[in-house]
Parts: sequence; structure tokens; C-alpha cells
Amino acid sequence: MTRVHVWGSSGYAAAETIRILSRHPEVELTTLESRSHAGQNAGDHFTALRNLPHRFDAPGSVFEQLRSGDVVIAAGNAGDARTFLPECVARGARTIDLSSDFRLDASAAYGLPEWNRASIAAADIVANPGCYPTAAALAILPLAGMGSIRTIVIDAKSGVSGAGRTPRVDTLFAEVSGDVRPYGLGGHRHQPEIERTLCERGIDAPVVFTPHVVPIVRGMLVDAYVVFERPVDADAVESAFVRAYGASAFVRLLSGDRVPSLPSVVGTNDAELHVDARDSVVRIVCAIDNLGKGAAGQAVQNLNIMLGYPEALSLDARTVFC
Amino acid sequence: MTRVHVWGSSGYAAAETIRILSRHPEVELTTLESRSHAGQNAGDHFTALRNLPHRFDAPGSVFEQLRSGDVVIAAGNAGDARTFLPECVARGARTIDLSSDFRLDASAAYGLPEWNRASIAAADIVANPGCYPTAAALAILPLAGMGSIRTIVIDAKSGVSGAGRTPRVDTLFAEVSGDVRPYGLGGHRHQPEIERTLCERGIDAPVVFTPHVVPIVRGMLVDAYVVFERPVDADAVESAFVRAYGASAFVRLLSGDRVPSLPSVVGTNDAELHVDARDSVVRIVCAIDNLGKGAAGQAVQNLNIMLGYPEALSLDARTVFC
Amino acid sequence: MTRVHVWGSSGYAAAETIRILSRHPEVELTTLESRSHAGQNAGDHFTALRNLPHRFDAPGSVFEQLRSGDVVIAAGNAGDARTFLPECVARGARTIDLSSDFRLDASAAYGLPEWNRASIAAADIVANPGCYPTAAALAILPLAGMGSIRTIVIDAKSGVSGAGRTPRVDTLFAEVSGDVRPYGLGGHRHQPEIERTLCERGIDAPVVFTPHVVPIVRGMLVDAYVVFERPVDADAVESAFVRAYGASAFVRLLSGDRVPSLPSVVGTNDAELHVDARDSVVRIVCAIDNLGKGAAGQAVQNLNIMLGYPEALSLDARTVFC
Amino acid sequence: MTRVHVWGSSGYAAAETIRILSRHPEVELTTLESRSHAGQNAGDHFTALRNLPHRFDAPGSVFEQLRSGDVVIAAGNAGDARTFLPECVARGARTIDLSSDFRLDASAAYGLPEWNRASIAAADIVANPGCYPTAAALAILPLAGMGSIRTIVIDAKSGVSGAGRTPRVDTLFAEVSGDVRPYGLGGHRHQPEIERTLCERGIDAPVVFTPHVVPIVRGMLVDAYVVFERPVDADAVESAFVRAYGASAFVRLLSGDRVPSLPSVVGTNDAELHVDARDSVVRIVCAIDNLGKGAAGQAVQNLNIMLGYPEALSLDARTVFC
Repeated sequence: MTRVHVWGSSGYAAAETIRILSRHPEVELTTLESRSHAGQNAGDHFTALRNLPHRFDAPGSVFEQLRSGDVVIAAGNAGDARTFLPECVARGARTIDLSSDFRLDASAAYGLPEWNRASIAAADIVANPGCYPTAAALAILPLAGMGSIRTIVIDAKSGVSGAGRTPRVDTLFAEVSGDVRPYGLGGHRHQPEIERTLCERGIDAPVVFTPHVVPIVRGMLVDAYVVFERPVDADAVESAFVRAYGASAFVRLLSGDRVPSLPSVVGTNDAELHVDARDSVVRIVCAIDNLGKGAAGQAVQNLNIMLGYPEALSLDARTVFC
Repeated sequence: MTRVHVWGSSGYAAAETIRILSRHPEVELTTLESRSHAGQNAGDHFTALRNLPHRFDAPGSVFEQLRSGDVVIAAGNAGDARTFLPECVARGARTIDLSSDFRLDASAAYGLPEWNRASIAAADIVANPGCYPTAAALAILPLAGMGSIRTIVIDAKSGVSGAGRTPRVDTLFAEVSGDVRPYGLGGHRHQPEIERTLCERGIDAPVVFTPHVVPIVRGMLVDAYVVFERPVDADAVESAFVRAYGASAFVRLLSGDRVPSLPSVVGTNDAELHVDARDSVVRIVCAIDNLGKGAAGQAVQNLNIMLGYPEALSLDARTVFC
Repeated sequence: MTRVHVWGSSGYAAAETIRILSRHPEVELTTLESRSHAGQNAGDHFTALRNLPHRFDAPGSVFEQLRSGDVVIAAGNAGDARTFLPECVARGARTIDLSSDFRLDASAAYGLPEWNRASIAAADIVANPGCYPTAAALAILPLAGMGSIRTIVIDAKSGVSGAGRTPRVDTLFAEVSGDVRPYGLGGHRHQPEIERTLCERGIDAPVVFTPHVVPIVRGMLVDAYVVFERPVDADAVESAFVRAYGASAFVRLLSGDRVPSLPSVVGTNDAELHVDARDSVVRIVCAIDNLGKGAAGQAVQNLNIMLGYPEALSLDARTVFC
Repeated sequence: MTRVHVWGSSGYAAAETIRILSRHPEVELTTLESRSHAGQNAGDHFTALRNLPHRFDAPGSVFEQLRSGDVVIAAGNAGDARTFLPECVARGARTIDLSSDFRLDASAAYGLPEWNRASIAAADIVANPGCYPTAAALAILPLAGMGSIRTIVIDAKSGVSGAGRTPRVDTLFAEVSGDVRPYGLGGHRHQPEIERTLCERGIDAPVVFTPHVVPIVRGMLVDAYVVFERPVDADAVESAFVRAYGASAFVRLLSGDRVPSLPSVVGTNDAELHVDARDSVVRIVCAIDNLGKGAAGQAVQNLNIMLGYPEALSLDARTVFC
């Protein structure tokens, strides 16, 4: 059994992490540190966790309880993990950060297992990718080496849980309902992460990224349009995706009328991809759960890899359609 | 033309008031005073008002602009209108308050036109009823005098716009979506208003009131179950409702399979009622728009009555199904 | 391992049954007979089942594969199971029917385990209760023997999955969205089942039942108002509920501000109850998943009881908030 | 007053046409012919029309009532108008077709007023554009003549009312809710209309078109990405849009953080556009109501143009946020 501490436990991604780990056969959820909700039952804060016995622990609890060999998952706000996680590592822990703090930092492994498994296995700090970058990277990375790319359009649609649980006018039910809202047209905080991830694999074309909030709670659909300089061979494109994901436990390749579906991935760590090519444009549609493969699910996948457990342990859930 | 000032202009009910009055042929929207959004375009605050030219005015604007004979509509928070409206009256204005400040106050007319038209016509201060009390009163008041009532159950379902636009965790899209949430089980702030309105017409049975938030933006459905001491005559019940509302411009009586429908009332000042009786229980289902007949629509209806305009002026909208 | 056959596999309750049983450690899903979708992958029909290998089998498959000791779960339309299940029993199978065919039939056990466990354990045919009757019975049955009841009001709100997957105008997204729709005001097909279940435990007061469709996919909230002839003792009421459900694995009693929540029960076999009493009225709010405790979850609970497995086997899921 | 007949009156676009025309001061709604709902009240079929007196007329009614100078609006299924409308024209009527029957037909005027006003004014048959082509054309046509275009990506998100009111599994609430569903990846029926409309103005680059259904009833957002061969001048792009729409009553140009919003256009004939350019890619975001500017609103705008009425007559509605 591995002792796992969740630090910054009161947001949606933390709740999903707790939900998954509460059933993990090799994990003992040791502390759930929360500055804002210390002392409360997890189930009073998230009714979906009512059938769990956990309570939120006071600030400082992780350090009090931490032993060498433990794992710390940081699910707090950006900025908070910068000094905290290195201290945990200094005390013998291994760590996974759900914030953006380490994603552009060479001292951490980038936690996208399908493309970076070996580094994750060896890392003390894993930077869990953002939800948009996860979907974009899964969709585009197989095209590395297929030819010169002129431009990449990423049109993304995200459930509103991605905006977090801190109250804001623009995430109120009355504002989100009935709208499809583009945002960050002048530049989105996830764009550098997307560009760096592509660039590291040799894809350095300019990216036009348009995120939208849609009136769903969970789930993300990313349509990526990769415009090559010259026509591409559709069979070669298909082969590249099979090569990349044919053996993956979590990425499903679909074709024809079988299109990616959010009810098919929400509540799981799965990703679904549909690829087609015409002339010089490759279109990839990718569906993930922004809190699953885009956050908590991928964190647990990373944890399994770090600890040498089967990669899908406790991640074999069937979705609940709704 | 009547000059109308809206005081406290940044909430949903204010926006709906502005939307309706912007098309009122006898009204000039003079000031839209807003403490929090002074100087902004109304359409930047509410995108649904983008095709209007109005701006929010600074605190103090109403008093600066006020002339004798003007109308002031107060759409601010409870408490704010207690001293402000009497001052407006002292300067020669007539006033309508959308908050609860004057609803239990004998110095104001209770603005439920179908039951109180004469007082409204003569009043300097009209207390616009709450949305729950409006629907409950329309549903139950026709039963006054039909016999001794043992108990009244009011089971209400409200769109989330009724909770206002101030950000709260429990009105976030991710919290409201997929839930039907009872609240105020220990006592709701609207219950005294409901009881007083019924009591003034001779209905003083105990009321059990259960409000729920449902995942819709606008609209309210109230199911009222009036349990009499003895069996009631269904024909007499039906006659009482026809007598009460047969000549109403806004209340539609439905029967059989034609049930009240929110898409049929949202965006309008209409109410729909379905009544049936079995043995000693009368069940009334009432649908209104919580921001229409439950707030802004009724305020404009009251304004029309106060000023001697046709009661339905600018209130003849067809709904937009959505 | 028990071989289980699902007969009539193409509706929502069947899909949920398949989802749950696919993880049941003592069950082998042997045939999934479907008249309408024979030969298709389950995951092509329900994208939420894409990560399962199952296919729908042709008509007649259950009889071809049936062996003595198997279990047959019938999830077809009302009427279809009347002759089919007795034939299965004649061949040595034990059966659970999700339709209404056997619910008023003394030859079958009524599958409400919290009130009927012994009969279920011994039965060859278990009539799985309807979703409304399940919630109503859980809410009201503990009050048997507490005094003479004058009338019972049941105001129910159901997700639209309860209406099934056969296309109809009134279950289209564009019709359900934004509405709270009462139906069956002239009499609902579940009312006799509710009345009989109450009556068998000595509660024979008249029932006023108002079901509503709300714009959610899964989940059901039932508000029951039990009007006694005389004031009731609130402590005695509370004790009755603790006696009834204190040891239950699935029924949670809540109090105060902790109200039943659909996100807390959807995807599970749980029920949540909140009870309060004032004078002569007891109000009970009950939340279940109409496809969980109201259909598939309860069917698996019944299966576990019939076969002597732990009652919660494969029913320990945490909900996915969404 | 112009007598207007609606032929094929039972779908969503017909309902919206009726709603708008019921308030048009120069129009008398003469017949509402419906094969499927003849004899019913419009308000029984669409509860949102309950406060209108209209009934659906029997098949043949338009021909019985038609006089020279009347207008016929055909809102039936594709195929039905091919012979019917020319017969109406032969009898002296002028016609507007909401189906696709005449959109690729040179005998009809293409009813996109912002780009084709003169032809519409003179036409006997106006082919009202599809919703996707309307948004795409408004977004892209101003770029004609700005340089050589390499490829155009159109990523569109539509409310489900665009799929019509005929019941289908994939438009049920339980299927649409929680999903963002791409469809027609192998080719959508609107693509030829889009390509022809662009081509007629000199834009003949290959188009990649991805429509999606999102869980909203009304509204459409189209993101168009126009990839030029060479970098474009952002100021020139902006000027082109101002030139095209600066004087338009219905098209609003937005910039910076003011992004197109569905609540801002639903229920109106408005369109909102946001344009930005970086290097060789121009991104245009366009919001319309698929039943407004994308169907019924534009039909009424065309009717006003054909009859010489002010173009915005009866089209000045403020939206209802919801």
C-alpha cells in the first residue's frame, strides 16, 4: 500500500482524484489537506462524495504525516506548488502536480504517459498536463514527421468544470446555459503549453487556438485541423495513429460514423480519436473528460506508472451516461 | 411620456425590466442607477441588451434627475429601498419596489393586480410581490370561502435566475446542472409573505412550503395542494377560478391534458393554471416566469395600472421557445 | 459464477444493468437478447458502453443458452414478460422483471429489498419496482402505524431517461429543455403500484400523485407530504426511519441543511431521505437514481439477495458528479 | 396589409415564422397549412404559441385562399416545394422557401440580404439560406479579394432545434445532454451550399466543414479560419468587415473581449461577428439564432425587402436571456 496525500483538496479535480483513489487497491488516502475546508466532511463539500468517510485536514497536515516513499498530489492553485513540492521531494516523497506550475519546467517530467512513459516512471515531480494540452497533444503528436506543417487550428469545447469551483459570474448556471462562449481570443494561458509540447516533438507550426465553454459540466471535445504544405497520404496518417495508440489502454481510435462522444469518456481516463485527411488537411477530433484524462484520471495513471502498478489500476470504470 | 428611473440596475430582474420598458411606447427610460456598474453599457453587462443604447448611471443619478410625476422602480437588494423610496415619494415620484422591503408593510399597496387593482392604482409605493408568493397566491386565493382548509402544501420549482447574479457556489452551472435541489426546509424567507397574502383573504391554514431549484434559467412551476376538511365540489372550484380570472389578460386557465408549460410563459407576463379536485383535495398547478409575472413583468403591469395605461401595454410578447 | 441473461437489452435500464453487471465478480453476462439491435455492438448502440466487448444477441438466444440455475433479467416492454419469464422458470432459471408485468401479481415477490428481503431471497420471479413507487415506498412506509393518515401528497420530479429511448416529440431535447412538465394529472400508471405497496403495510389513505419531467437525464426527487389526522411526534417519526434504515447499505438518512442531492445518488444504488414533521404533516424528501435504485441497481441488489451474495456486491460505486 | 400563407407549418422554423409574423403590422396570417396537424390550435402543438388564436389549416388551404399579390412561405420538408412554389407563382404569389429546394437553383434569388438585396427585392422565389451557410457566408464573404486563400476551416456548433421536430433517438434529451457531437464528417448536406455561395463571390478554396450539435435549443456559433497563402493586413481585414456591415441593421461587429454571444442573438434576426488576423490566418467567430437569422428571421427580412417595407419591421425584438 502506498500512502497518498492530496494537497489542495477542495476543487473539482481534487474531488475526482479522491473519488478514483478511494477505490484504488494499492493506495491509502492519508491526508486531504484543505486550507478553506479543513475539518469538514468531504461529502458535505461535494455531495457526490457522501458515501466516503473522508474529512479535510488542516493546513500543515501533509508535512506532519509525510513519510519517505509517500506520494503527494497537489491540486491547489497555480503558484502554490512551486516551493511546496520540492520540499516534499526533499523529505523523500514523489509528487504529481495538477497545476501549471511545473509544466514548462525541465526539472519535472511532463505527465503525458502515451508520449513520455519512461520519464514519468523515474520522476520525483510529474507535471500533470492541462486538459486542453492533453487533448491537443494526443490529437496532433502522431503527425510529427509526416511533412511540413503550415498552420494548426485547434478549436476546443470544454465543460465548465474546467473553470473551477470558485464562484464567478461567468460560470453561473444562468450565464453558461444556452451559450457557446469563445474566450481567450487574445491568448489563452494553455497555448504556450500546447506549443511547447508540440515543438518538443518537432512540430513548430503556428497554432491558432480557440477555446469555448459549452453548457456541460464535464467533458472536452477538441477539433484539430493540421494544414500541411503538401497533400498528405491518408493511409500513412492512419498508420501513424495506430502506431501511436494501437496498444494503449486508454486511447480508442474510431472511424467512419463512429465519432468521439463525451458520454463515452466522461467519468473515465479514456480518450477517443477520429482522424481523417483530405488533400493537405488532417482533421482530428478528440474527446476526453477534462477531469479524467485531462486531470485526475491522468494523475492516477501517472501514479500507477511511478509506482510500477498496472497502468489501468482503478481506472477501469465504465461511464455513467448522463 | 412618463419618465422612469430604475434604481439598482445590475441584477436579472432589472435587466428584464429594462428590456420590457425599452419597448414601452409611453415610457422614457431616464436613469439606470447602478452602484456596481456605473458607466458601463448595459449591453456589456448583459449581452442580451446589446442592441440597446443604455448606460448605467452613477450613484445619486436618480435624485439628480427626478421630477415630480416620474416613476422610480427599485430593483436593488432587500433593505436598500426602505428609506430611499419614501424620499422619492416626498419629491413627487411614484414608486415600485421589487425587493421584499415593503411587502409586509401596510403603507404600501401589494402589487398583485388580479387581486388588488384598486389599491395599486392609487398607491405611491407598490410592493411588487415575490415570485413564489405570486404563483402561490394566484393558485390558492380563488379558494377563499370554499370551506374550511386543514393544510396547504406548496411544492415549488424555480429557475436559478431567482437566486440572483451575485456569484455563489450553489448557483454555478456545475452545481445546478443535473440536480433538483430542495432548500429552505427549515423556513424560507418567502413563507411569511405567502401566509400573509392568503390570510388577508381569509385563508389561514398552516402552509408547508418546499422550494426547489431546478436546472433551468427562467420559469417557475408551483404545485399547490389544498387539503379541505370536507370534500369539495369540483364544479364550484372551477367556477371560482373562472370568476377570478376569466377576464384576466394574463392568467390562462387550462384543463385536461393541457398543462401549464414554462416555454409558454417565459419571457411574458402570463400565468397558466390547471386545477382539479378529488374528494377533499384541490390541486392547482401554476406556471409563471419568475422574472416576468414573478418580477419585472408584474412591475410593468403595476406601472401601467398606476399611470392609467392599458394594463397590457408592452406586455404582449410572444414567448421564444428555448 | 452465475450466468445471467438480459432479455430486451436496448433500453436505458438494460444499458445500466449491463454496465453494473460487467463488473460483477460473480456474474458472467451470457446473452444480451435484443429484437431491435441483434448483431450490433452494445457500444455502438450506447456509446457509454464502448469499452465493453458485448454484442446484442438475436431473438431466441436466451432460450438457446439457458441452463438450470441461470438468472434472466427482463428489461423489455410491459407485456412481453408475462409468458416469457414463467417459461424461463420452468426451465430452471430464476428471474427478475424490470417491467410492470408482475408488480401487482401475487405469484412474484415485490423486489423492494429494504421491506421484502425474505420473499426476494426465495422467489423465482422478482418484480422489480417502478422508480416512482420505489422512492415513494422508501419515503412513506416507515410511517405505517404512526397514526391515522388523512391524505398523502406525492410530488415527484424525474429525469427524462425514465421515459425510455423510443423517440417521441415530448422527450426531444428541444421540448424538455427549459421546462418542468407535470403529466398524468388524470392518473399515472404507477399510482396503483404505489397505493398497493402502501396498502399492504396498512397505509390506505388516498394518494394525490403528481409526476413531473425535469430537464435532467437521470435522477428522481420525490417530495412526500403525509397529512395525519392528528399531530405527530417528531421524535417518534425520526426513530421510525432510523429503525427502518439505520442498518441499510443503501439508504442514507440526512437532517438539517443536508438535503437529498441527485449528484449524490446518480450512478449508484443509493437513496437519500430527509424527514421533518410539523404538527400533523410529515414531509419526506427522497432522492434516487431512477435507473439505479429505481431500476438496474435495485435489480442487481435483488440478484445478490436471490443468489446469497453480499447485497452490495458491484454496487459500491462512487457517483460521478455531472 | 399583405396576406401571408405558411405552408408546412408544424416545424420549429414555421413556429418561429408564425411568432414573428403575428406581430407584423403589415401582415395578415391567412392560412397555416399543415398536413400533419390540420385542425389543431397552433398553441396546442407549440405551447409557446398558446397566446395566439391561430389554427392549422387542412391540406389544400393555401391554394383555396391564394390571391394574386399574396406571399407564400414554405417551411416544409426538402423536396415538397419544388413544384408547389412555381404553381403559387403562376397564380400571382411571391414565395420564400425555407427548405433547400431552390438554394442551388438559378431561377430563385438567394435570400442573404446583406449580399443580395437587389435580387431578393425583384424575385418571385427566394431561397432562404440554411443556417450554417448563413453564418459561414456572413463570416467569410467580406474576405473576397483580400488575397489567395489556401484552405478554409469552418467549425460550427448548432442548437438541436436545427435538427427539426421529428422524433429521433439522437435528438432526445437523454442523448444530447452532456455531449458535444460532431456529425457529417464524411460530408454534410450544407457543404455544397456553403461552397457555392463563397465561389460566386470568388472564394473557391477547399472548405473543411465540421458541424457539431451542442446541448442548447437555439443558437449557432460558427468559427471560421481562413488560411491565406500570404500574411494578411489586419487593418485591411477590419476595414472590409466595416465596409460590408457597417450600415447593417442586423450585423454587429465586436472586438477585443466583446465576443459573440448566443443569448445576445437568440430570438432575434441579429448576427454578431468577431474578427482577428494573425500572420496568414483570419479567424472569424459568428453567432446567430439558427431559427432567427438562420431561418425565420431572415425569411421575414426577405419578405420586408420583397414588399418594400422597412427591412427591420417586426424584427426589432430584444432577446430574452435564458
